Amino acid sequence: MHATIIETLIEKFEQLPGIGRKSAERIAFHILERMSKDDVASMAACLNEAKEKILLCPVCQNLTDSSPCKICASQKRDPSVICVVESPEDVSAIEATNEFNGLYHVLHGALSPMDGITPDDIKINELLLRLGDGSVKEVIMATNPTVNGTATAVYISKLLSPFGVKVTRIAHGIPIGSDLEYADKITLIKALEGRQIM
Amino acid sequence: MHATIIETLIEKFEQLPGIGRKSAERIAFHILERMSKDDVASMAACLNEAKEKILLCPVCQNLTDSSPCKICASQKRDPSVICVVESPEDVSAIEATNEFNGLYHVLHGALSPMDGITPDDIKINELLLRLGDGSVKEVIMATNPTVNGTATAVYISKLLSPFGVKVTRIAHGIPIGSDLEYADKITLIKALEGRQIM
Repeated sequence: MHATIIETLIEKFEQLPGIGRKSAERIAFHILERMSKDDVASMAACLNEAKEKILLCPVCQNLTDSSPCKICASQKRDPSVICVVESPEDVSAIEATNEFNGLYHVLHGALSPMDGITPDDIKINELLLRLGDGSVKEVIMATNPTVNGTATAVYISKLLSPFGVKVTRIAHGIPIGSDLEYADKITLIKALEGRQIM
Repeated sequence: MHATIIETLIEKFEQLPGIGRKSAERIAFHILERMSKDDVASMAACLNEAKEKILLCPVCQNLTDSSPCKICASQKRDPSVICVVESPEDVSAIEATNEFNGLYHVLHGALSPMDGITPDDIKINELLLRLGDGSVKEVIMATNPTVNGTATAVYISKLLSPFGVKVTRIAHGIPIGSDLEYADKITLIKALEGRQIM
């Protein structure tokens, strides 16, 4: 058997999403055999620093190390359009298309009665607070095209009707049932372009 | 775009073997959103500690935090049989079968003229040093069944002939061209049982 510290290192990586036993072993041995001590120290420091410094943007609720986040603070973005997504990964995917110039709102999940996720468990109130001053003209619902994501989009669109903003839904160019963050750029662009009034 | 520290964290994970951009993002967001600060600190500390404390066993050259390693130091192992493998992952795979009770020797690679890997680049001399006192009766060549692994086995078996030890080759129950560390336990057991005189 291996020494305990190697086993512990393997287990740490095994707990990360998408990493099984074999991958965790391969990563641990890569770190021990092929990475320099400086590189490992820098990786460890990065983990701590990220966890220390990253907070939720008080406006859009995305992960950020500045308050508000760079997107919310940017003078070049159009503050009259808000794209509502489930997770920070989704912001990352849409930003990579370079086709969207508005702001975001990250819900951190979707409504799921089966899992006990209610409107209070995701960042819906924080979205409503952003609509008070009337500067927002359109809210694009870009939650995942799953049962929960669609239900969340419908629920929020009903909540938003008193505010008189246009509420649109990202087009279903994205294959139904899959995750938004895995869509390719072109599909994401088509989906943004083809959005429909809800 | 994301804040720099998140991007840095993603890049750190992207550099690890078997992890692409999407997996790295998923892992980074998992760490930032779902892991506690203590868990992250413990992971970071484990990285540094492992890199700090792990060294090569002066006898078998496997990764270890004790000198000699636990396998070499064990009174329960048979020191007359040495199983020669390419990497620490291979030791891990063979140990998991619970069918081998001898010692190991980790070469840290295989001969590869194309890549400029010569006998001096892997731990062959360290193996020869272990055979000086005549206590070793058998050396099992368990390098991968690839061109380089097989060439390494043949090369070492010729070097060992003056020592009068039995040199055997792990049986080809393992599919040719694949990696030893990915073989299932039964295949590995069959391969150990079916070893042949070289």
